[in-house]
Amino acid sequence: MNTGCVFCKISEDKIQARKIYQSNDIIAFHDINPQAPVHVLVIPRRHIRNLLEADEQDASLIGRMLIVTTQIAKQLNIAESGYRIVINTNRNAGQSIDHLHIHLLGGRAMQWPPG
Amino acid sequence: MNTGCVFCKISEDKIQARKIYQSNDIIAFHDINPQAPVHVLVIPRRHIRNLLEADEQDASLIGRMLIVTTQIAKQLNIAESGYRIVINTNRNAGQSIDHLHIHLLGGRAMQWPPG
Repeated sequence: MNTGCVFCKISEDKIQARKIYQSNDIIAFHDINPQAPVHVLVIPRRHIRNLLEADEQDASLIGRMLIVTTQIAKQLNIAESGYRIVINTNRNAGQSIDHLHIHLLGGRAMQWPPG
Repeated sequence: MNTGCVFCKISEDKIQARKIYQSNDIIAFHDINPQAPVHVLVIPRRHIRNLLEADEQDASLIGRMLIVTTQIAKQLNIAESGYRIVINTNRNAGQSIDHLHIHLLGGRAMQWPPG
């Protein structure tokens, strides 16, 4: 755990969040500042700063995070209508929390370009 | 191979594209309609329609696709400044080609919301 990290604190139930999925290494919760009718964040419990800090040994974990994200899209009934997954790394992308997280957005038509 | 799929044809060199990465199961090439100074697509060679068609057995492949995407971000010098990864599934997200693809965008500040 990174003691200064809000997502680590959510993982350890030291900060409240509207969690909708938990396993031994992945959790998901509703974004506190949603950009669509459905906006969920999927994160690893382990403090990985972003994709640049992940390596080939993390491929299975990251792949399972995407499978979980799709399972949540199905659960929240946005899978068939459509959903966008976004992962931001570093400043130009707007990464605001230095703990790897997948954005899941749906429930409305998304625009192009994607920001 | 899906005979009607443009990305399958790119994978098999039956349609030209500006490829920048090739392995036995993943390829990457520049988007023909770029939305940022760098806009690359990373796809599996196998015809998977989208994430809804992937299952847990594909977690490793999908994870490696994201690792490859990050390697390309480094190669194209957008990793430190920042890059956004986008995966669209079905109509609301704007999925336009029915072959799973990861968008890699960078080289400019991306906006929020992401479309």
